[in-house]
This record gives sequence, C-alpha cells and structure tokens, in this order.
Amino acid sequence: MPDRFFEITHRDPAGQARTGLLHLRGCAIETPAFMPVGTRGTVKAMLPEEVAGVGYRLILGNTFHLELRPGSALVERLGGLHRFMNWPHALLTDSGGFQVYSLAEMRKITEEGAEFRSPYDGAPVKLTPEESMRIQHQLGADIIMAFDECLNFEAPEEAVRKSVELTLRWLARCKAAHESHAERSHLFGIVQGHFSAALRETSARRTVEQDLPGYAIGGLSVGEPEPLMMEMLEASVAHLPAERPRYAMGIGLPLNLIDMAARGVDMFDCVIPTRNARNGRAYTFEGIKIIKQAQYAEDAGPLEPGCSCAACTQYSRAYLRHLYMANEILSARLLTGHNLTFFWRLMERIRAAIRGGTLKQLRAELAAVFAGEGEEAEGRGADPSERGCRGS
Amino acid sequence: MPDRFFEITHRDPAGQARTGLLHLRGCAIETPAFMPVGTRGTVKAMLPEEVAGVGYRLILGNTFHLELRPGSALVERLGGLHRFMNWPHALLTDSGGFQVYSLAEMRKITEEGAEFRSPYDGAPVKLTPEESMRIQHQLGADIIMAFDECLNFEAPEEAVRKSVELTLRWLARCKAAHESHAERSHLFGIVQGHFSAALRETSARRTVEQDLPGYAIGGLSVGEPEPLMMEMLEASVAHLPAERPRYAMGIGLPLNLIDMAARGVDMFDCVIPTRNARNGRAYTFEGIKIIKQAQYAEDAGPLEPGCSCAACTQYSRAYLRHLYMANEILSARLLTGHNLTFFWRLMERIRAAIRGGTLKQLRAELAAVFAGEGEEAEGRGADPSERGCRGS
Repeated sequence: MPDRFFEITHRDPAGQARTGLLHLRGCAIETPAFMPVGTRGTVKAMLPEEVAGVGYRLILGNTFHLELRPGSALVERLGGLHRFMNWPHALLTDSGGFQVYSLAEMRKITEEGAEFRSPYDGAPVKLTPEESMRIQHQLGADIIMAFDECLNFEAPEEAVRKSVELTLRWLARCKAAHESHAERSHLFGIVQGHFSAALRETSARRTVEQDLPGYAIGGLSVGEPEPLMMEMLEASVAHLPAERPRYAMGIGLPLNLIDMAARGVDMFDCVIPTRNARNGRAYTFEGIKIIKQAQYAEDAGPLEPGCSCAACTQYSRAYLRHLYMANEILSARLLTGHNLTFFWRLMERIRAAIRGGTLKQLRAELAAVFAGEGEEAEGRGADPSERGCRGS
Repeated sequence: MPDRFFEITHRDPAGQARTGLLHLRGCAIETPAFMPVGTRGTVKAMLPEEVAGVGYRLILGNTFHLELRPGSALVERLGGLHRFMNWPHALLTDSGGFQVYSLAEMRKITEEGAEFRSPYDGAPVKLTPEESMRIQHQLGADIIMAFDECLNFEAPEEAVRKSVELTLRWLARCKAAHESHAERSHLFGIVQGHFSAALRETSARRTVEQDLPGYAIGGLSVGEPEPLMMEMLEASVAHLPAERPRYAMGIGLPLNLIDMAARGVDMFDCVIPTRNARNGRAYTFEGIKIIKQAQYAEDAGPLEPGCSCAACTQYSRAYLRHLYMANEILSARLLTGHNLTFFWRLMERIRAAIRGGTLKQLRAELAAVFAGEGEEAEGRGADPSERGCRGS
C-alpha cells in the first residue's frame, strides 16, 4: 500500500462531512466521489475516454461477472483489466458477495464460501474469500473488496448475528490471501449487520481491528425505509476511523449522496446514472426528465441548459425523445453521457458545499426537485439484484 | 440546382469506370462514393462527428421512417433534418417506395400512390409522389429520390411493364411537385424494369427524358443471382447520360461495389457495414471476421492491423469478442466505427484503382477473401425488407 493513499483536505466544523483526496495511479481523486459502474469491463454505452472526459478517474468493475465471462485468468493474460478495457485510471472491483446474494435460491452458503450455478451456462461455481482475492488480483484493480455475505431483507436477528461473524471470518481469510498483494492494491473491509444498530457496531469495530486502508458500508438501500438506512449508516460510520476512506456501496440517489456525505461518507457507486439513461430518465438540477413524455416532442431546447455534455450542447429535447422512441443506440449514449455529467456536477456541488458549510442549503434545494425519487426508483426494481444497485 | 453539381475527374480508358466529385454543401465528395445509412436520423450507434471523422460527407435518411416517426413536419419546424440530427454535411433521402414494397400484404398500390397501415400504430397512411416530395422537402435533404414502385421477386413481365409505366407517371408527378424546390435539392429518378433488359432500357430512356440531375438504379439485389443483377445493371446504365451521377440503390457487398463501379456507377448505399457490425461481423481486407468465434477469445492482436479506427487502435480482438458476447452497446459502437472505416478505405482503394487502371487486380485480390459473401449475407435475410438493404 503506497503512503498517503487518502488524505482529508477539509472537515465540516459543524458536522461529520469532509472532503479529501484519494491518491491512485498518479491521480488525486477528490472525495466525496461517485464511481460509475462498469460491470462487465465497460461503463455501458461509453468509451473510456468519454468517462474520463467527464472527469472521472475511478470506476468499478465486477468480480462476479468478469470471472464468469470472460474469466479473470484470461483478463490477466491480456494484461489486466485496465489494459483489457483501455481504462488507464483507477479501478475498484467488487468482491462478488452481492451478486451471489442476488442469485437467491440458486446459491448455498457454507463456512468455506458460496456455491452456485453460473447464470450464463449453469456450471457449478464456488466463490470463497480466497477465490475472490485471487480473481481481484488477476483483474488487477487498485481497490479491491472483501468477500462478504449479504442477507435477505427478512433475515431474523440470530441469522444476522451469525452472518456478521461469518463475514468477519471471511475478512480475516481475505486479508491473509491479500498479504502478498498488499503493496499493489488496497483491500477494503465491508461493514454489515443488516438493520441492527448493535450488530452494525460489532461489525464495524471488528472489521476495523483488521486495520485496512478503507472501509465500506454494505447491505444498505436494499428496500428499507430511508430513516432506517441512515440510522444503520450512522451506526456503522460512528465506529470507523476518521482518517480512512468510507465507501457506501450501491448508493446513488442524489439526496442519499448528500445525506451520506453529510454523515462522513467519501465514496459511492451506483448504476442509477447509467441504467436510468438507458431507460430514458435524465437527471438534471430541475429534477428527472422522462424523455419519452409528449411535452418534449417539439421541444427545441437543450435537455439541461448550462450542461456541457454532448446531448445538451448539440441536440434538442425533441431529437433525444425521437432517438429514445425509436430505440436507437445513440439515445443510450447521449443520455448516459448526460447523466454521468450530472452526477459529476452534483459531486462537485457537494464538495463545494462541504467546504463552504452550505450542505444543508444544497440538500434543501435538491429535495425540492428529487423528493419521492427513491420510491419511484424502487418501483422499477422488482429484481433484488437491481435494488441498491451494487455492481449490477 | 447549383451549377457543376457533378463533375467527372477521370475516365477509365479501357472501360466504363470513372471517378468524380459531387459538390454538395461546400464539400467535394469523391466518387464512387459509399453512403452510410441513417434510417431514423442517426447512423446507428454513431455520433455524426464520428461518421464525418471517418471521412463521410454524404449519408442517407429515410422518408418513410422519419415521416411515421417523428414526422417530417416536426423535423421541419425544428430546422430540418440536418439540424435535427446535427449533421452539417450532405444528406440524401430515399422516397419511401422501397419501404412500402417491404410491407408486402399490408399495402395497396393505386394510380394515386400507396396506401398502407403504419407499422408503428396501425394508422392508415397514404404515400403519393406529391406526398413523398413534400416530406423530402420538409426534411430538407440535398438529394431526394423519386417515388417509385418496387415489385415482388416473382412479378410476371406484364406486371413489370405496367409497373415501369406507373413509376414513370409517378416520376413526372414528382418532377412537377419538385419544381418549386429545384434550386434547393437534386431530384434523382429511379430506373426500374425488374429482370427484363428490354424494360430496363425503356425505363432508363424515359426516365432520362425528364432531364434530372442524377439517376438511380433500383430493384437490384433483391435475391436474384449475381450475373442477372449485373446484366440488369448494365441494361440500365447503358442508357443513362455519362455526365450525370449514377446511384445503385441498396448495394453494399464489397465485390458488388467493385463490379458496379467498373460499370460506371458513382454512388452506393447499404446497411451492410452498420447492421453487420451489430451482428458481430467485422469487415477487413482479410475478409469478414465473426467476432464471437472462439479463436478470438484470447487474441491480443488488433481487429485489423493497419486500420486507424478506435476498435483497431485501442482494443484487442479478445476484448471486442467479450463485448459482443456480453451484448454490450460498446460492441455495436466499436464494430460500426470499424466497418464504416473499412468501407471508406475500400472506396478509396476503388477510386485509386480506377485512376491507376488496376480495378481488375483489386477485384481479384478481394474476390479471394470475399467469395461467397453474398450467399452468406442472403442467408441471414429472410425478411424481404432486409434484402438489398435499401434504406432498411
């Protein structure tokens, strides 16, 4: 692990929020940072240089999907994931834990790890802490995640307690398996504990005992009410060391980003900007625009005045609506580029608000346009793998 | 019609081939030229600047599809098709005749025009020569096509004779309806006559009587054997004036481009490069590469060495295969960019070969790698609207 991986540049004197820098691959990445998701080695619909052109220098890849297809050994032989996907900047890979969870009935969890059948070809697959480390080392990401167990929404407290213990034992195995690679990538532990504040505290304290370069909070935004989500986040963050980065996995609703940044979270990822773009939902500082709506049919104006993306500077809302209605690939391209630009600008505003002490005002301003967004977003996601967005 | 719309820059002393320039919107477009197809106001998967970046300055739009969605009147109110789709260079729009034909049982042809039900919403639609002109004027293309009747493959000679006469009467109506716009766009007539050399001659001679700025040859590559296609092409071209551009509609197999350029054709269009890209078929000067094949799974080499496109300069065959297998949008983007680059390079080689008198050698070289491509391509296209590629 290089020196000075993370530094805090500003602390909100009136709260928990902070700004910082993640030093990765020669870049200083400003936090709080949002990370676009490139599940299968591509941020859907985008060229890497377009993602970097927006400003991003840290994106996600997915262990589970890349191991099943094309295989991490193959990616390693081709020079690692950075070279394979032509992304010269920093990468974070998820451990596969969440994807195993989303297989629901098709998986079996043992002390050893998870056994399941590949959703691609039905072949039996075993994912263990050691396997997850091996895969992530082969992919070669700059930040890698511990292999954790995620729980069903209805899990009873006793099951949660056992699961927290299992995840902690898995974490120790991950750390041992990572020792030889500790100079090359940063292993983050994941705090679990479901909806129990006490178990969140246990999980956080004992995860921190492993002395890792960063800590994630998992198991949130899986369908629980927002106050409970924030309570669980606080119960987790309260026991994490201030000087290490904190990553809220699968979080992407704009108001959640603000609320969690206010509680001291430094990193986020979500498929919301990319997936919603493909569904014709454009994020703007005036709220979400559903591009198929008839009101845009003859609208010659830009999608969002003042936005610098290609969709906003070169096309009318009417043309963007036409592309979406005609199911044209260019619709996904232009709206993805726009939404990634919106999320970049949103994070810039969040960082500026933290520095200026105006996060509450920003929250109030955006609450007026994004109120109820969470319910809407949940409405789309019947598939549990789609909820919470983690790496899906 | 501006002066000097088309000029011939070189004539093959030993044959019919020629090179030339089409002067449109301030550009001199070298011929023989291939025109990418942008059916619904977008060359699928590409940004306009990417299409122009390859070298193209003349692309197609489609009257039939754009009239049904979003409507030519709407496009006109938004500044015309050039502005709507952000394509500042030249546009050619097809008349809708071929798309009406591909509706098969759903259409009715009368002296007045064609009546059919919209494939989008079932609404009754009437397309006449005057309507086709009105629509194309509203779209604002630089070259527009006469409204013609296309025939079923099995049409008996008497039906062909009647159809040729109908298309000629429709042409006269198109010309009359175009008179007021004759300074703004170039109306091309379309030679029909199905598989009768005599009717091709009749159609060509009487189309030329209308004294138009250019002439197209329609009704080819609809499933007929290649020698018959070339015979019908010759029977058509023989009666067209040498000094006007000739456009073979829906032609795009590389060997057909060479063989028709050798017979004096100046313009071509086809969905082959774009559609095949989405189907994972990459054109190279070593032949077609089917990217899903297992041989590319670990292939670290470029798709086509020496090609300057993004797919070839920034990615391995293994990554391109992975994107295709994972059904990622980036696969369509990269392979479309590659195929459009291949077709651009192919036309450059055809033009150079015409100037150098080496078209036969180029033909022989490419015959070795593209032999049998036509049969393969036909094999995919059970849908008649997919055959011949015209504007589909």
